[in-house]
Amino acid sequence: MEKFINDYQEGCIPQILDKLEKNNYSAFSGYGTDEICENAKSLIKKAIKSPEADVHFVAGGTLTNKIVISQFLKSYEGVICVDTAHIATHETGAIENGGHKILTVKNKDGKLCPKDVERLVKEHIEGLSREHTVKPAMVYISQSTEMGTVYTLKELTNLSEACKKLGLIFYIDGARILYSLFAENCDFTLSDVSALCDVFYIGGTKAGALLGEALVINRGDLKRDFRYALKQNGALTAKGFLLGVMFEGLFENDNYASFCKRAVRLADKIRVALKQKGVEFESDCKDTQIFAIFPIDYYKKLEKEFDFGGAVYKGDKAYARICVSWATTDEKAEMLVNAINNL
Amino acid sequence: MEKFINDYQEGCIPQILDKLEKNNYSAFSGYGTDEICENAKSLIKKAIKSPEADVHFVAGGTLTNKIVISQFLKSYEGVICVDTAHIATHETGAIENGGHKILTVKNKDGKLCPKDVERLVKEHIEGLSREHTVKPAMVYISQSTEMGTVYTLKELTNLSEACKKLGLIFYIDGARILYSLFAENCDFTLSDVSALCDVFYIGGTKAGALLGEALVINRGDLKRDFRYALKQNGALTAKGFLLGVMFEGLFENDNYASFCKRAVRLADKIRVALKQKGVEFESDCKDTQIFAIFPIDYYKKLEKEFDFGGAVYKGDKAYARICVSWATTDEKAEMLVNAINNL
Amino acid sequence: MEKFINDYQEGCIPQILDKLEKNNYSAFSGYGTDEICENAKSLIKKAIKSPEADVHFVAGGTLTNKIVISQFLKSYEGVICVDTAHIATHETGAIENGGHKILTVKNKDGKLCPKDVERLVKEHIEGLSREHTVKPAMVYISQSTEMGTVYTLKELTNLSEACKKLGLIFYIDGARILYSLFAENCDFTLSDVSALCDVFYIGGTKAGALLGEALVINRGDLKRDFRYALKQNGALTAKGFLLGVMFEGLFENDNYASFCKRAVRLADKIRVALKQKGVEFESDCKDTQIFAIFPIDYYKKLEKEFDFGGAVYKGDKAYARICVSWATTDEKAEMLVNAINNL
Amino acid sequence: MEKFINDYQEGCIPQILDKLEKNNYSAFSGYGTDEICENAKSLIKKAIKSPEADVHFVAGGTLTNKIVISQFLKSYEGVICVDTAHIATHETGAIENGGHKILTVKNKDGKLCPKDVERLVKEHIEGLSREHTVKPAMVYISQSTEMGTVYTLKELTNLSEACKKLGLIFYIDGARILYSLFAENCDFTLSDVSALCDVFYIGGTKAGALLGEALVINRGDLKRDFRYALKQNGALTAKGFLLGVMFEGLFENDNYASFCKRAVRLADKIRVALKQKGVEFESDCKDTQIFAIFPIDYYKKLEKEFDFGGAVYKGDKAYARICVSWATTDEKAEMLVNAINNL
Repeated sequence: MEKFINDYQEGCIPQILDKLEKNNYSAFSGYGTDEICENAKSLIKKAIKSPEADVHFVAGGTLTNKIVISQFLKSYEGVICVDTAHIATHETGAIENGGHKILTVKNKDGKLCPKDVERLVKEHIEGLSREHTVKPAMVYISQSTEMGTVYTLKELTNLSEACKKLGLIFYIDGARILYSLFAENCDFTLSDVSALCDVFYIGGTKAGALLGEALVINRGDLKRDFRYALKQNGALTAKGFLLGVMFEGLFENDNYASFCKRAVRLADKIRVALKQKGVEFESDCKDTQIFAIFPIDYYKKLEKEFDFGGAVYKGDKAYARICVSWATTDEKAEMLVNAINNL
Repeated sequence: MEKFINDYQEGCIPQILDKLEKNNYSAFSGYGTDEICENAKSLIKKAIKSPEADVHFVAGGTLTNKIVISQFLKSYEGVICVDTAHIATHETGAIENGGHKILTVKNKDGKLCPKDVERLVKEHIEGLSREHTVKPAMVYISQSTEMGTVYTLKELTNLSEACKKLGLIFYIDGARILYSLFAENCDFTLSDVSALCDVFYIGGTKAGALLGEALVINRGDLKRDFRYALKQNGALTAKGFLLGVMFEGLFENDNYASFCKRAVRLADKIRVALKQKGVEFESDCKDTQIFAIFPIDYYKKLEKEFDFGGAVYKGDKAYARICVSWATTDEKAEMLVNAINNL
Repeated sequence: MEKFINDYQEGCIPQILDKLEKNNYSAFSGYGTDEICENAKSLIKKAIKSPEADVHFVAGGTLTNKIVISQFLKSYEGVICVDTAHIATHETGAIENGGHKILTVKNKDGKLCPKDVERLVKEHIEGLSREHTVKPAMVYISQSTEMGTVYTLKELTNLSEACKKLGLIFYIDGARILYSLFAENCDFTLSDVSALCDVFYIGGTKAGALLGEALVINRGDLKRDFRYALKQNGALTAKGFLLGVMFEGLFENDNYASFCKRAVRLADKIRVALKQKGVEFESDCKDTQIFAIFPIDYYKKLEKEFDFGGAVYKGDKAYARICVSWATTDEKAEMLVNAINNL
Repeated sequence: MEKFINDYQEGCIPQILDKLEKNNYSAFSGYGTDEICENAKSLIKKAIKSPEADVHFVAGGTLTNKIVISQFLKSYEGVICVDTAHIATHETGAIENGGHKILTVKNKDGKLCPKDVERLVKEHIEGLSREHTVKPAMVYISQSTEMGTVYTLKELTNLSEACKKLGLIFYIDGARILYSLFAENCDFTLSDVSALCDVFYIGGTKAGALLGEALVINRGDLKRDFRYALKQNGALTAKGFLLGVMFEGLFENDNYASFCKRAVRLADKIRVALKQKGVEFESDCKDTQIFAIFPIDYYKKLEKEFDFGGAVYKGDKAYARICVSWATTDEKAEMLVNAINNL
């Protein structure tokens, strides 16, 4: 049974394992104040061409989102995102538990549209009710999106400009941003993304680290005292060098690139095979996720050999996500492609 | 420069590294629903002789404390602990940020005394102010304590009985519990501790794991829905098998024992050497921590070769903590003992 | 300029003023432990035919909603309501600030439909994501609704049964419940409503008190320690007898009835007049609120003499709420009816 | 039985009752946007000689404290106060529930000493643990204190300067500030107090209003969006004019002065009588509170005719608080003085 369930089912890229072994008996200072973290931060700041940025390593994505949103907003401020956003749908109310209302607008193929942001802000600020509604203060998007789609540079620029004009913090959840860099027709770099937003994170967990997300704070006034916030939220890892190792491993010699690039290439291959069989997609997905709408009999055949983590059935269709990861080999992907061709 | 700064400065025991390597390309199901976590939980339940317990793995101690306290208490309930408790002094107000008042009483050599618990509860419940004060509902202790002292079985039993009588949840922070098992004259086992409390955690981070604490919930009514609470607090690690590997590594063949035992033995040696030189201690510490009160000139000499993480000076004394870890070798400890002998 | 802006623009019914004067120099015990509060609670328990209920007086509706929801739900539990619900739209994120996600479904003429509740619960509980989404645990409705519509006894019964079946707490916001009792074709009593829900509040503010809502807790396990929750949220009024006076004034001799009955009767008259002129309504409103859709020229004429608190313009229509209150006199309503007739 | 239990046992000064009656059928705009509130705010700004201040009316003291502290501090910031402070002892953990740690220092006759503030800040900011402890960011005092003592102008000035130097917000809880103005040897005015702090509130509840506290925000950067915070915390009263009436009533013609002055004069008389009998005091109380330490037989005699709300017995002493209020008449006080003289 070959598993294409998600992109966090395997361990880590080999360079990280090597480093863990190499560093195992060295004595590092605690809570991320060590030299490995320093080096990992330097590598990231170089990659995003932003020497002034503050970089923090956090164990997971939900924890990162919760801290960013609860720290950067006043209690009565809300965060705008699409209805399919991770914070709105898959974080067990972590953001609300942190005290903040999420203001959702309908997604367009997984993406947020600046016009919807402007309309929503207008309704809240100019409405008769003013202080009886929350005050929109942040925009949250994911790159790539929860639907596997990828914002173009133009789309990101438009959102960035809308945020500036409206006085909103622009926050990008980059759980899969390292994959998005290799999506077909990708027209942006990591540094482009960084330059357009106030704060974002580069996901390590899904891109080949054992765990960890690298939070980048670009806006000066948001940097202050952030380690206090991390500690208060249980996010200052005692053996902080562990997270340093993850990002040193990913960014040294751009190690992440070959793994993420391969993963997207393999996903593209699978997409091509599916299309040739007339399988449709829920979205114009371009990262390592494929939101396929199978004829049920196709799905029933495939699930004998492949595990996609369960499908939702509607009418005569089976909706399932196929997910390639940094660890997926050419051979494993080939097996799936062949099975699709033989449907 | 030899570092005796803390017990989280090195990586992990070799058995864990081996397992990481061995499992690296297997595909596990996410969020701790995998077979490694299952096995690790079984090993722990066997070790505590409590097949009915619920075990959850959490990335760190502050995160664990915050979730346990915020989930098990109603908003107006408070937690009782000593003034030196970790939650009261070193968690940046995480517990208060989770909504709860900490009710501190003066420690006795780092320990909490049942009489103080009874008095405090009486004052709050029977007082004239009743609902104008918080309602005490939980007792928090650390085993071993933040002062390195170790509760005896009798002391734990007395606290446990006081909690039962007063209707308080008894919670034990076991960040260093695996060390405490090897303290001089230790008269309890892991299963003894487990049987006496409602909920506790076994610290992995300080005992030879890269990260992770194993939370054990004994009381039935506290078990419900706990994974929701974990997720909401950003504590459901995507690659949950990583935490499983940590505790499988520690508890398989009782691997932790040889490392923790050695660490306490080495700390004892250092204590003996210090005593012989007339150095005093802040507490009757018995785990791998030594709270030494050095004559300043002694400290000045030692800090040329050894790093204890900084001292606090009062009068002609230097207060410093020497900390041995699971990774400290006999050779390294011997160097310190020799240096002390040569003072 | 005659104001029909809302139902909290005037002071209180004369019986309350009399009591304030009469009691002014008596010395009452604090925080609602006085004999006036006791009497007021007895009157309410008699009115709802529920001697076992717990009654608490709270200064305002948002405060009541916030406390009820934050106390009765676990942090990871959510509350279900319609998209137009007061808690979802007009409380500045108070519920989220209290830590809870609001799960909205589309309203049907301001009302919540049991089928939507069932579907939503099913999606959350049976879905693949389980603990990655909040757990629905409460249903919130308003009687009458924010659209001025009134649930029938049958509709309330159906919702009540759905809640029982699904294990949800059923909470009714009765900010305008005293008006709803006099709505055309009303087929329920206060005691009917009380018997169908776990907790509800009877709004005093909008029904002729200076301030105050009477929270009624029917379900036994929800009663415990509630005064602690009130105090912690700043809702235990020092001069608690003030709130007692409000509800003694409203419920003694059913004083509220004549005022609320008149208000609905006058609103009905205005509705009839509007209909005759072809003015349409946004909803089938039956309490003292009228959500009118005026031809703009009609509205322009009326607003010269009457203040409805501002309209929203869409196309050639003006959307405005006309609100009658307990204090509105026949003469004042007649003036508006005449003006409408003369349009 | 004459009650001297507290200063919130009676209703309100007659001028307020008159205004309630006079305004009862006028239609005011909601949520404190009415002309009575505007006038009341003007009167207060005149009284404190601070035309630039923002004034908000809130229903009660705990609610005010909770909102002020939760809004003006970041989540990881703490508030410094004495161990006897109201927020530390009598608000059911409201501040912690709002997310903030309270950092207490030992009181000196109910008062906070600037040196203790400096020491505590130094320990937190300069300590080895930095971000592992909360960051002190606000000083909270009460004027008069919970022990009935009154800060002198010099003491307030010293605290104010310490706060400025250390970058702390200086917040004064003035629940009884209107009484303190008439304390023996009082050397400050309302405007002096206002000029020395960043934010404070003038208590209405205890000084002759039915309810309400007037929050004054002096520091510009703290003013922004405060009405959002009020609404989110359920503190934007629908009939806001009710709170306006309270403060218009108190401050018009300085109505409060004669009532508060009399109350302090009567408390002084009682203190003199007690002293002559050798009764001691727990503190050098100077407002309308008297913290008496009675020989038990004295107390037993007095409690037959007078209700002080219960005593605490220690050894052969009874500790009880006698509290005079704005409503206490000369005759009632005389009765108590006579009874004391006849002990």
